[in-house]
This record gives sequence, C-alpha cells and structure tokens, in this order.
Amino acid sequence: MPEVSIVLVEPLYDGNIGFTARVMKNFGFTRLVLVNPCPLGDDAVMRASHARDVLDNARWMTVDEVYREFDFVVATTGEVSKSVCTPMRLPYYTPTEVRETVADIDGTVAILFGRENWGLSNEELKRANLICTIPTSEVYPILNLSHAVGILCYELANLPRGTYPLAGPTEMESLYRHLDAFLDRIDHPDFKRENTMILIHRVLGRTKLTTREVSTLHGLMRRTEWHLENKE
Amino acid sequence: MPEVSIVLVEPLYDGNIGFTARVMKNFGFTRLVLVNPCPLGDDAVMRASHARDVLDNARWMTVDEVYREFDFVVATTGEVSKSVCTPMRLPYYTPTEVRETVADIDGTVAILFGRENWGLSNEELKRANLICTIPTSEVYPILNLSHAVGILCYELANLPRGTYPLAGPTEMESLYRHLDAFLDRIDHPDFKRENTMILIHRVLGRTKLTTREVSTLHGLMRRTEWHLENKE
Repeated sequence: MPEVSIVLVEPLYDGNIGFTARVMKNFGFTRLVLVNPCPLGDDAVMRASHARDVLDNARWMTVDEVYREFDFVVATTGEVSKSVCTPMRLPYYTPTEVRETVADIDGTVAILFGRENWGLSNEELKRANLICTIPTSEVYPILNLSHAVGILCYELANLPRGTYPLAGPTEMESLYRHLDAFLDRIDHPDFKRENTMILIHRVLGRTKLTTREVSTLHGLMRRTEWHLENKE
Repeated sequence: MPEVSIVLVEPLYDGNIGFTARVMKNFGFTRLVLVNPCPLGDDAVMRASHARDVLDNARWMTVDEVYREFDFVVATTGEVSKSVCTPMRLPYYTPTEVRETVADIDGTVAILFGRENWGLSNEELKRANLICTIPTSEVYPILNLSHAVGILCYELANLPRGTYPLAGPTEMESLYRHLDAFLDRIDHPDFKRENTMILIHRVLGRTKLTTREVSTLHGLMRRTEWHLENKE
C-alpha cells in the first residue's frame, strides 16, 4: 500500500490528537504529522492509550512543507464547507473513491484534516490533489476529528502495495509554473488566473501523472510556444 | 433503509456514550439503546454535543429484551475475541458484508457493542443473527467504542429502503424450540447440543427467513416426526 501519513492542521484539543493516534494504529497507520498543534498534555497521552509511540513519533511540519514533500495530498472538508461552494472545494471524493484513487500509488500520500472549528483554509486546500468529504447527515454533519480520521483509516487499511510511480512534487510544481507562463503567453486574463490554475491543479492533481507524462506535457507546451513565436 | 438501532451493552465510560450519540447522528441514526450503562454525567452531554437529543431519547433495555424485540441482531466482536475461536464468534462478517446483508431487510435491526474492556459475553453473543468484526491491525486491535460505532454507522448510512419482510423474533424462537425438540426426538447427544443449536442459530440467523419459510420448516419437521412415530 502507499505510504500514508495523517496530517492534523492546527488541532485545538489534544484529546483529539491522542484519539487520532490510537485509531491510526488500530488500522496499521503510524505516520502522524502535526501542523502547529495545541499543547500536548495528559488528554493526548491518555486517549492515545497504546498508540503512545505514534504520538511520540509525530513529525511537526508546515502545510507548505507537506505539499513540497508528499507525492499525493488529499484534503478533507466537511459537508458544511462543501456547501460553501467554491471551485476550490469541488469536485469532492468519498473515502471509498479516495481509496480507489490512491490504491495503486507507489509513493507518499498525505491526508490533511483541518481544525475542529473551521477546517482547512482555501489557501491550505488549493494545492491538494484531491478533495475528500465524508458523506454525513445534513441534520448534524460535524464529525469529531478523530472519528473522521478513523473512517479514512478504516477505508485505506489493507490497501494493496502500490505499483503506480507518481511524478514528484518538484516536477509537478515546474509543470504548473510552465502552465502559468503558458497562460501568460496566450494573454489569459489575470482576474481569471487563480481559479483557472486551481482548476488545472484539480484536473492534473487527480490524474496522477507519471514523470514521463509530465515531460510530454512540457514538450507539447514548448512545441506550441515555438509555433506561437514563429507565427509573429 | 431498515430501522437500525445502536445498542451499547454495559458501557463503562459516559464519554464514549456521548461520542456514540454524536457519531450516530452524524450519519443519520437516532435510535440509541443502553443496557445497564454507567451513570451519565457531564462527559456524556459534552461529547454528545449537538446530539443531546439522541442521548436523551436513548431507551434502556436488557440484552434479552433486545433479542425479543428486534428482527435482526448483529453482535460486534473485536479481533481479539475473534481469536478466542469459539463457534460462537464465527463466521464473522466485515462491516461492508453486514451492510450488504441487512440492506434489503424490511424490519428492525439492532447492532450490539460490548463493554470497553471485555466486549460481549458468549451468552450475549449466541442468539445474534450475525457476528461482525471490524478488520484491524494485529499490533493494536482495540478500537475505542465510539470509533467502532462510527465505522458501522458510516457503512450502514444511506442504505436503500428495505423490502425484505423477515420472520419476527417470536416466530424464530418457536422455530428454534421446535428444532431443539426435534434433536431430542432423534436422540442428539446432550453434550453436543448447545454448540449444535448455536450453529443452527448462526445459519438460520443470517439466512433471513420469511414467515412463509419458517412455517415450511415447521411443516417439514412435523412430517418427519410423523414418520418417526409411525415407524415404531
């Protein structure tokens, strides 16, 4: 199975961090990443129970570092923020669909979970390969953080060993830079730019490009650019 | 979808009862049944959060009452007690298989969850239609109670409306009594009796018999009994 890390972005209650460590270990996951968490006190240790090791081995990173290090990043949003219908948060995948999508990835996968009160910011979401929303009741859609993590871990457990070599984050970044420059080249209006780049990000993100495919896309753009030059 | 109730048997920590109420409501379930629970204090109310109504409307029953009232009863066991390999706890179904099995039931379904420390007793398990075990890591298989409930609720959410009319618990009980009497009639040894009856229970339990099928089975046994009489 792909190497899956669970990333908690600015969790507010250390009890939830402890419960997250526990339910991760329950399903065989040990890689916990904490982004600027609340202080870890007795609640964290108590709720982690026999997953103390997961808690102690947690890595502290920034969201930016996560996007730069991991090959495939899934950002989770609640039904609520989904209803705040920005292109940023759509399309969303269910945990089962996420499982199917990452199943064959041979690389590192990070799953981002936002703050208990307002989740992930658009800034934190927009670079994600995939958006995941757990289908919940409209009456009371707010899952406890550790319950949400538990359901993702349950779905992702026992995935077959990945065999799908992904292009790394650096390659993808240079592709996106090339695309951005290409949009300049064809006078794509600035005011539309961000949303267009986000859309491109969503599409290419979930496409799981290989290194070969990335260089082919560069090639196609270079070829187009050459013809644009030589028309003038 | 079938009318699903979550039954907590002698839960030890009221925080888990609160979290259970919350995660139930997150997935649209409102029927909570408590069997001789610990006192419900602030932790229960706090963790229930906006699912206070589920907590307040919880019914108090005995395990025996549950088996007498509900059409289909699923008993959950951990990987651990599964490894205590009694016929009582086998075969076990995964939450996905439980979902598929109860999907078309038009009746009442109860899902039993045992105590945090040692789960359900054999006595509490043996009358169940189905045994369910959530596949977990061997390293740390003990799920928090509310995480286990959450995963079952997540799987069972959004089930289609059931269309499969089940024979009620009373009809099934009389069938099992008839079968037991029939075993007497064919001199089935007492020392094997309990395990045999449990096996029959497991088989007919998951078969989801209709009223018609139950009476047919009675008929077949009566016919056999008649021939047994008239041979002598």
